[in-house]
Amino acid sequence: MTTDDITREAAAADERAALEQAVTEKVIASFADSTTDRFGRLMASLVRHLHAFARDVRLTEAEWEAAIRFLTDTGAICADKRQEFILLSDVLGLSMLTIGINSPPDRAVTESTVFGPFFVDGSPHISLGGTMSAGAAGRPCFVGGRITDEEGVPVAGARVEVWEADDDGLYDVQYEDDVTQARGHLFSDEKGGYRFWSIVPSPYPIPDDGPVGRLLRAANRSPMRPAHIHFMVSAPGFRTLITHIFVAGGPHLESDAVFAVKPGLIVEFAQQPPGRAPDTDVMATTWYRAEFDITLARAEA
Amino acid sequence: MTTDDITREAAAADERAALEQAVTEKVIASFADSTTDRFGRLMASLVRHLHAFARDVRLTEAEWEAAIRFLTDTGAICADKRQEFILLSDVLGLSMLTIGINSPPDRAVTESTVFGPFFVDGSPHISLGGTMSAGAAGRPCFVGGRITDEEGVPVAGARVEVWEADDDGLYDVQYEDDVTQARGHLFSDEKGGYRFWSIVPSPYPIPDDGPVGRLLRAANRSPMRPAHIHFMVSAPGFRTLITHIFVAGGPHLESDAVFAVKPGLIVEFAQQPPGRAPDTDVMATTWYRAEFDITLARAEA
Repeated sequence: MTTDDITREAAAADERAALEQAVTEKVIASFADSTTDRFGRLMASLVRHLHAFARDVRLTEAEWEAAIRFLTDTGAICADKRQEFILLSDVLGLSMLTIGINSPPDRAVTESTVFGPFFVDGSPHISLGGTMSAGAAGRPCFVGGRITDEEGVPVAGARVEVWEADDDGLYDVQYEDDVTQARGHLFSDEKGGYRFWSIVPSPYPIPDDGPVGRLLRAANRSPMRPAHIHFMVSAPGFRTLITHIFVAGGPHLESDAVFAVKPGLIVEFAQQPPGRAPDTDVMATTWYRAEFDITLARAEA
Repeated sequence: MTTDDITREAAAADERAALEQAVTEKVIASFADSTTDRFGRLMASLVRHLHAFARDVRLTEAEWEAAIRFLTDTGAICADKRQEFILLSDVLGLSMLTIGINSPPDRAVTESTVFGPFFVDGSPHISLGGTMSAGAAGRPCFVGGRITDEEGVPVAGARVEVWEADDDGLYDVQYEDDVTQARGHLFSDEKGGYRFWSIVPSPYPIPDDGPVGRLLRAANRSPMRPAHIHFMVSAPGFRTLITHIFVAGGPHLESDAVFAVKPGLIVEFAQQPPGRAPDTDVMATTWYRAEFDITLARAEA
């Protein structure tokens, strides 16, 4: 190439970049008169980053079409008990990032993690020390701890929602029948104590028979999640805590499909011999015990 | 605030930024072993930009939930004849940007613009000079021109797909009945010539009874598009051209809801007196004539 050729090519590249930037600026300007400043700011930033992505990768028209198809398929599989867009946000780490952005500045409280797509409103009420497995297959397990504020003052009457997968790695809502198993809610006592019987959770793959599963396969990524129990803890005057406890020593802790593991949430599920056990008859088999104390953050005034 | 307070706050902000960045890097790393390099590169870039957006705007959990709901609603309204994700891409300017990124480097060819959601496969074949309105309401209009390559050599046998809205601003697929109107395809003659009768297109709002309509209202943006006829022109050895012609002097040329107007695509629809007219009987009413010569880019080898 001659110097002239190089100059011409550089000028053409500059002109193309300017034309592309002009599209972006025009779209951003179209959000300047939004009904709220916040919406305008969100959309302007979304457009800027979305366009930067398309330019950075020099998105082809075939790739654009594949993206439209992917989103359409993701929408088509959503149903009452299937939320594929949450799953997509989870495997892209957007859920964990959003949780991080919104975590309270004080690090002395129990950490949050993803909500996931398996929570169900209106779970059964379980008395303190009661059983929430409701026939779900799995090794018996007693979970308990204390709920306090950041000064260690007990939080009485906190609502603790708990849900988990059974020994086959499935939540109740993934079965065809309408059974409710391995989920429930209870309230902490006046000392902030909570405790319940359930089952040791099992590792499981996130639902991978849909678009998100295709995405994971294209990435050679595993759909597996380490074993965990979901918690959602709410009490007046406190930020609602959405978190898990993970089974210490289990597989996939280093490669959670949704990036949800935090070291502070890994809990020992200690094996116990048959015999006396809390809140129940003598246990004829081995059982497990997990302790998880919870520190809630005060809601912002 | 004391200097110590400021130092502490800055350290806390640094720590938070580092934790957020760590999430992003972990997700990007999860795509490192993708089945193709291109897929890995696309996903890494998408994650980087998507996360940068969430961090830049400090996305709240309520906003994340609203986004999940918006995407779910967008998926739910998609159907055989409704493609809301294309509409979303269009109003965010992503469609026009992608077209710009993929436009051939030589600027001497006819410019592209958005495809839109109203193309239908298997349109009726129209003979040269025939009528494609098929009863659609509107002022009669004769459209024609020559299709050539970049050296001005005629392209014979090019397939020209044309589709447009009627006088009420609606495409045939937007009506309840299954009628086919104001769409068709024809083939250029040996001199590259093409011509057809149809109707003068009308401005119209993009479908705004769904999530994309809600987005436009939140942005105080108009859903209107300037009047246009869609073209898709294909011939062996050439890049398929997807474009519109816009009616010169019409409303909304400066504020197209999908950012698709390019000056080179604005065409005079010249009013003609009743009387003799090409390829038809004597016209009893006023009619219109538009000329649109098309230059195709050679396909890359």
